[in-house]
Amino acid sequence: MTSGIQGMQGIAKKWSIGIDLGGTKINGARVDETGTIIESKKVKTNIKSGPKGIIHQINELVDQLCAGKEDAPLGVGVGVAGLVSETGGFIYFAPNLQWDDVPFEDMLEENMPHDAFVLNDVRAAAYAEWQVGAGRHFNDLVCVFIGTGIGGCVISDGKLIAGANNSFGELGHMTLDIDGPPCHCKNTGCFEALASGWAIEREARTGAAANAESAHLLLQQVDGHLDQITGKMVIQAANGGDPFSLAIIDRVQLSIVGGLTSVVNGFNPAKIILGGGIMEGLQKRIPSIEEQVKERALDIAGETVKITGASLQNNAGVIGAALFAMKKFNETIL
Amino acid sequence: MTSGIQGMQGIAKKWSIGIDLGGTKINGARVDETGTIIESKKVKTNIKSGPKGIIHQINELVDQLCAGKEDAPLGVGVGVAGLVSETGGFIYFAPNLQWDDVPFEDMLEENMPHDAFVLNDVRAAAYAEWQVGAGRHFNDLVCVFIGTGIGGCVISDGKLIAGANNSFGELGHMTLDIDGPPCHCKNTGCFEALASGWAIEREARTGAAANAESAHLLLQQVDGHLDQITGKMVIQAANGGDPFSLAIIDRVQLSIVGGLTSVVNGFNPAKIILGGGIMEGLQKRIPSIEEQVKERALDIAGETVKITGASLQNNAGVIGAALFAMKKFNETIL
Repeated sequence: MTSGIQGMQGIAKKWSIGIDLGGTKINGARVDETGTIIESKKVKTNIKSGPKGIIHQINELVDQLCAGKEDAPLGVGVGVAGLVSETGGFIYFAPNLQWDDVPFEDMLEENMPHDAFVLNDVRAAAYAEWQVGAGRHFNDLVCVFIGTGIGGCVISDGKLIAGANNSFGELGHMTLDIDGPPCHCKNTGCFEALASGWAIEREARTGAAANAESAHLLLQQVDGHLDQITGKMVIQAANGGDPFSLAIIDRVQLSIVGGLTSVVNGFNPAKIILGGGIMEGLQKRIPSIEEQVKERALDIAGETVKITGASLQNNAGVIGAALFAMKKFNETIL
Repeated sequence: MTSGIQGMQGIAKKWSIGIDLGGTKINGARVDETGTIIESKKVKTNIKSGPKGIIHQINELVDQLCAGKEDAPLGVGVGVAGLVSETGGFIYFAPNLQWDDVPFEDMLEENMPHDAFVLNDVRAAAYAEWQVGAGRHFNDLVCVFIGTGIGGCVISDGKLIAGANNSFGELGHMTLDIDGPPCHCKNTGCFEALASGWAIEREARTGAAANAESAHLLLQQVDGHLDQITGKMVIQAANGGDPFSLAIIDRVQLSIVGGLTSVVNGFNPAKIILGGGIMEGLQKRIPSIEEQVKERALDIAGETVKITGASLQNNAGVIGAALFAMKKFNETIL
């Protein structure tokens, strides 16, 4: 019997573990070399326990995902919402985790029986879309994730571009209106300040405060509590035809078109993938966004670019982290 | 005596010819492997003669630059203000020359006794600044040339990035104000529509038409002919303290700061080089531009980026075209 199992292992696919470490939850998955999730687990992030406590949580997830397997994972990839060094997995800044200057990859390696690799979560998600998702077979690809904030990642000539400080592709902080509203960064009128989840919330709350009558549909949902209006709520109301919400989302679409036109002219991608929670609610608008971007972009880059939705949704982070680790610890696979 | 000359030739530097083909003039130079111009010539572009006539003009320049030399150039590089294919030197569109779809490199090779290489003129100038100018020793570099229009070029991880259609880095057409004035491209509020030579002219002419009194200093210089006001004139007047021109140029500076903040956040360069005719007049503002960009950019990328003026000025085009040709036809040099 044992030899039979070994025989099966001989043709079994290699696998690794991907972890998506966010401020509210930690997602973990066992992923095979084709990017397929075999099994997944999640746990609520215990931020108060600090890096050591979170490593303990990750170890528990990894143990559960490895339990009963005869072979070990090729490695563990961890995507973190924060600024990560290009090599060595040093986290400079992860606001959602309240971390500054944490040598996270070293700490993981010390406290885990597997090889570990730490990278930025947007990079992880983009890598997954590129390798096994909507960006497959493209060498010049830009991913734009529009959720609470806006993140981006640029692949050019078949290479994920890092830049001087590993922060290449912070597309949410391209200026779209220098006289526009303040961003969470120090600038004004960033793409993120005009088209992200928090920007939609700001517009809806401000608008509802100024004119409760026109915003009655949203206000009804939150019992008049302005601060409970969310971006997704506004999108849903807009999709349902509410004129107040529709005006906000139409303007958001114009900002997305402006931001993506900058992306097309600046980065000349063959394809743009639009992901993130806000974009999930705006799927139906992608064809008109693509059309408007093509109208505005320079002919040479605009005529050929394709704009589509992401295909891996919330799983992109764990899949990308797992594939990155697989690539790093077994160079021959991808 | 002959053997003496041959002895000197034995240690002589290799050289090539660089051509900067513009709509008004053709600059040519003999350039050595250190990027030094040994000799240069220019001629007025005879646009009416078409590609064949211009090749004849280029051949005459090349012959003059080669006359009396015992050794031949390693090659001839030609920078053209237009859309050029990444390989093969096919020109899709060169508005200043009134060309569409010209297989220029093939035509040059057929009609010239030297190897020829055709590339975009902004790329050529950026390559020169990178190899032998203000960008030397930098692996992550963005060049922004602000003249009549705004052109850009991105070098990342030691590689000049081309993009899907060889149009990566059209930085003048990043959106800075989606509700802004129309650009010469199909978009509105591009960086170029707010901070280029033609944008400055538009602002000055419109402002002077609306309020001749406040614009009297400029109007005096052009005998009241609004359409003779140029960008350089406005910069000169602003540098001299004219309040009307100063207001325009201060606003242009804000747009440059917005555009470069997008560049820092989007492309994470270690250095930005500012060149072009308009920037030559704004040299003194570069330190305050750098300071303001650092204030607005994300910390990670903004803290380390350096912003300086170009060092090769009008010679960058011929030097870059020559060095590119030298690299292409003698891979061992650079």
